[in-house]
Amino acid sequence: MYQSFETAADGRHGAARAALLRAALAAAGVDGFLVPRADAHQGETVAPHDERLAWLTGFTGSAGLAVVLEARAALFVDGRYTLQAAQQVDTGAFEVVATHETAPEAWLAEALPQGARLGFDPWLHSRAETERLGAAVAGRGGEMIALDANPLDAVWEDQPPPAAGAVSIHPDALSGEPSADKRARIGAALAEAGTDAAFLSLPDSIAWLLNIRGSDLPRSPVAQGFALVSRSGEVDLFIDPVKLDGTVIAHLGNGVAVCSPEALDQALAGLAGRTVRLDRASAPVRIAARLEAAGARIDWGRDPCALPRAIKNPTELAGMRAAHRRDGAAFARFLHWLDAAVAAGEALTEIDVVEGLEEFRVETGALMDISFDTICGSGPNGAIVHYRVSRQSNRALAPDEVLLIDSGGQYRDGTTDITRTVALGTAHEPARAPFTLVLKGMIAISRARWPKGLTGRDLDPLARAALWRAGLDYDHGTGHGVGCYLNVHEGPHSLSRRGGEVAFEPGMVVSNEPGYYRTGAFGIRIENLLAVTPPAVPEGGERPMLGFETLTLAPIDRRMILPGMLDADERAWLDAYHARVLAEIGPLVPADTAHWLAAACAPLCAPPATL
Amino acid sequence: MYQSFETAADGRHGAARAALLRAALAAAGVDGFLVPRADAHQGETVAPHDERLAWLTGFTGSAGLAVVLEARAALFVDGRYTLQAAQQVDTGAFEVVATHETAPEAWLAEALPQGARLGFDPWLHSRAETERLGAAVAGRGGEMIALDANPLDAVWEDQPPPAAGAVSIHPDALSGEPSADKRARIGAALAEAGTDAAFLSLPDSIAWLLNIRGSDLPRSPVAQGFALVSRSGEVDLFIDPVKLDGTVIAHLGNGVAVCSPEALDQALAGLAGRTVRLDRASAPVRIAARLEAAGARIDWGRDPCALPRAIKNPTELAGMRAAHRRDGAAFARFLHWLDAAVAAGEALTEIDVVEGLEEFRVETGALMDISFDTICGSGPNGAIVHYRVSRQSNRALAPDEVLLIDSGGQYRDGTTDITRTVALGTAHEPARAPFTLVLKGMIAISRARWPKGLTGRDLDPLARAALWRAGLDYDHGTGHGVGCYLNVHEGPHSLSRRGGEVAFEPGMVVSNEPGYYRTGAFGIRIENLLAVTPPAVPEGGERPMLGFETLTLAPIDRRMILPGMLDADERAWLDAYHARVLAEIGPLVPADTAHWLAAACAPLCAPPATL
Repeated sequence: MYQSFETAADGRHGAARAALLRAALAAAGVDGFLVPRADAHQGETVAPHDERLAWLTGFTGSAGLAVVLEARAALFVDGRYTLQAAQQVDTGAFEVVATHETAPEAWLAEALPQGARLGFDPWLHSRAETERLGAAVAGRGGEMIALDANPLDAVWEDQPPPAAGAVSIHPDALSGEPSADKRARIGAALAEAGTDAAFLSLPDSIAWLLNIRGSDLPRSPVAQGFALVSRSGEVDLFIDPVKLDGTVIAHLGNGVAVCSPEALDQALAGLAGRTVRLDRASAPVRIAARLEAAGARIDWGRDPCALPRAIKNPTELAGMRAAHRRDGAAFARFLHWLDAAVAAGEALTEIDVVEGLEEFRVETGALMDISFDTICGSGPNGAIVHYRVSRQSNRALAPDEVLLIDSGGQYRDGTTDITRTVALGTAHEPARAPFTLVLKGMIAISRARWPKGLTGRDLDPLARAALWRAGLDYDHGTGHGVGCYLNVHEGPHSLSRRGGEVAFEPGMVVSNEPGYYRTGAFGIRIENLLAVTPPAVPEGGERPMLGFETLTLAPIDRRMILPGMLDADERAWLDAYHARVLAEIGPLVPADTAHWLAAACAPLCAPPATL
Repeated sequence: MYQSFETAADGRHGAARAALLRAALAAAGVDGFLVPRADAHQGETVAPHDERLAWLTGFTGSAGLAVVLEARAALFVDGRYTLQAAQQVDTGAFEVVATHETAPEAWLAEALPQGARLGFDPWLHSRAETERLGAAVAGRGGEMIALDANPLDAVWEDQPPPAAGAVSIHPDALSGEPSADKRARIGAALAEAGTDAAFLSLPDSIAWLLNIRGSDLPRSPVAQGFALVSRSGEVDLFIDPVKLDGTVIAHLGNGVAVCSPEALDQALAGLAGRTVRLDRASAPVRIAARLEAAGARIDWGRDPCALPRAIKNPTELAGMRAAHRRDGAAFARFLHWLDAAVAAGEALTEIDVVEGLEEFRVETGALMDISFDTICGSGPNGAIVHYRVSRQSNRALAPDEVLLIDSGGQYRDGTTDITRTVALGTAHEPARAPFTLVLKGMIAISRARWPKGLTGRDLDPLARAALWRAGLDYDHGTGHGVGCYLNVHEGPHSLSRRGGEVAFEPGMVVSNEPGYYRTGAFGIRIENLLAVTPPAVPEGGERPMLGFETLTLAPIDRRMILPGMLDADERAWLDAYHARVLAEIGPLVPADTAHWLAAACAPLCAPPATL
């Protein structure tokens, strides 16, 4: 079982651990310290070695920052996590602060003693972050102090060692492009931009570039390390050599020098006089400082692999399609099983559902991992957008409730991410109208066509127009990029008002997941993954447009739909989608599931003529 | 008759006038000179005195720039005007360059002789423009030279004198807010922003702030002048005193000092040590240079009147509604007249239509001006987006063609702007599907609801989604802001992908005018003006949204619609709109027109059940 239902961290040690840390800070000569959730790679998942924030505070959310001063300490979390943080953390030891109410810099401007020295680990912060906080610290006459060694690591007695998972080869048959070709392409792009080299700290960029996968982290098949790519396309890979066996080293070949992480500083020092691209959003400030000290010029920009990685080639798209058919068959078996269990009156909990779903995925024989911890919220739990069931929160499914399941699988050929909201027996009547509005938005995106150059921000309103008209909305983006056997959340594009400023290109994969959440009652989200394609110009059309190909294949619960709220085009889309699901998934499932699927994929009844 | 069908300028003098100008440049000690379309106020309309570009080149479009060097000269125009410029200009004297292919700075980087001194009139350019061109000039080792006197004016023998139109009072009953209150409000905003004063060069800002209107320009009821507003709300108005009579001076009162334009330099010199807001987009570079020379600090930002002016108060909105009812009645009479004339087989030309429409507006007894030259394009002329009929281009209407009419009126209580695309007899069959797609987009905007904070860029795709799906699009924004008895094009907001980055606020007025243009065949545009409103939260709605109130009241030609392409909601919107048009306009028109209007506003036939 990949998913665990135990709560890993424990906030009861907060006061004691803060005291330990404070002693270490005094020894290090600083008056305070920053403890972010991030590791040096700024990813969503961190290795047990890097769970510093959870160890210190007990908070297990995917984003947060603790600031520990001599007299005060605070945990900053965003709106998603305020409730969870208050439950997990000893609020006597840490004030829980919502960043949308008080940003860390605003808190520091008030809480930091005059002239204080605020320490930080320069591996764990971007330049933008330290500059923002540094302005507040300077405002109190204080100073930001980059510490060579992390004082928290010094007092964390049983800190797990750094991850040392084995690296495997991602074969050309799945990547569609030999690593040497990718390296030449990235090198040429750097040369074109007038840059001598790029420093890579995003593990998925390194995995993509070198056609390798790793096992350092749960859910994300990457290997932690750093890399320098030169304009000639040669790569220095800084990684714990224990992760690489001879076949991987042979695969990397002559163009990739494998170096120990300790050799990185020397390599940076060797870049004197050169121009080096650093990713503005994710490069550790330590790297920028070392490069500047060495006399290198920094070209702040975007990780040069980010866009090429996001644009999947035909081989990767074929892999994504295959993964989605496989995953779709498992998901159909799951839905059938769930429906039958509910009909039979079996007592099921949210954990039973998560376990059942994972088991169907495991039975494909191809599952490498789940792509994230399944979100399975019944009734009111469905309204908690980032709900993750634990032994404590686990809830028995009740008949005629709404169940929201958001899950995905990591397969060697692709990554999936699907959300369905289903009726447990009869549909909960008050949820049907909002479900149908969410579906209208989801269909609007699925059917969208647009001229090249538009971004996710531009398309996001199409997903919301029907909800907005009803005075409803949802407080998350409509979609995120998805990797190919890589991170399930992948940039640089997204389908979102905030941050969705990168133009869609054919080959990008993006989720389409509008929702609606009624606190205390139910949650609705419907999610398919889409690939950006250049569709055929329709008859009479004059201009090429971009559009989406739907990758995810699973029925959308017809019981939840109010058919009269869909227009003819929307009904036609849904019926065609269901026909496709049946045609592609039906042959892949056992006969009884195929029978169930045929019913689930039947055309929607036409609404009465008066509608 | 406001509109003229004569072509004012004549390109045949281009070579001779360029020669005259070159002699003046030599006398002024420069090697080249910039001749923009703009005057010192960067508006869309310029006074005859400022028609320098048309005098020099013959080009009469609303945007353009000539660069005259010793050996070469070029006229730069955007994509709208390349065809027109090539027709109007002596291309032996002026190369016509499309800016989207070669920007002036790119042309200068190649055409400018090494070390050349490029002169310009610092009244006529913004800082951004001179800096952009200056970089190219510096790249050739040259220099930009701000000239005290415009050398073109020196050789333009019969240059009309500067406009000296009378200023009138815009009464509180129409403005809804006394000027003193507006001045106090703007002064407070400047103080809040830490700025001592603002320099205003946009005549519509000055007209709004002082509750005055002018008669210097066609189509735009503003008075040319400049103003300095202090943080105490006091205003120095720099204007030719001949424009003001005693009642206007009394209206301006003690808080407004009327100064002659010659006093401006002295006033700027008096701002030493102060911070002065300049509008980044429109302030003449001359003002910035004088302020810097005086030792003032420049606060580059937005004209402080722009946003308050755009947000109409209840009195202004009531005036806009009244103007639209009056204009709608005139327009209904016009449509009825046109329909009857076509049915009777009368021979009509585009000019006849423009004259007929203007006559109906004049007959309201309230028309102060048309708000822009009517665009009236029949058949293929409709596909020329900025077509303006002249005696040369005038075309006889042919039966069963499509006619596009885009027009508006200036009334003391409001400004209108309406486009209708009508069938001349029977609808041209190939135009019906695109007409219906355009209508779908126009209805989508009309019905849109959205959470506060969204901009015109965010909503623009709603207007295009149906066209995009069919492989069609239009190459202009979906809408622009509209003033209240002010400029028909008014910022800072717009409904547009490019530049529509200002959030909509209740009270803003914006046009909604998607279109489709088939070159050589026909053009389609449907335009209503909308006011941003906070609509009632619908039953079951949870969040306040913004929406639009439609101001324009005129039937949309039902003959052009393919009803089966509209969904039930769209048909319901159209029928409700037509019912409202009939209810509000019907009582305002003669009985025969009311009879015609009732038929034009009848509900759309339901499509056959199979659709």
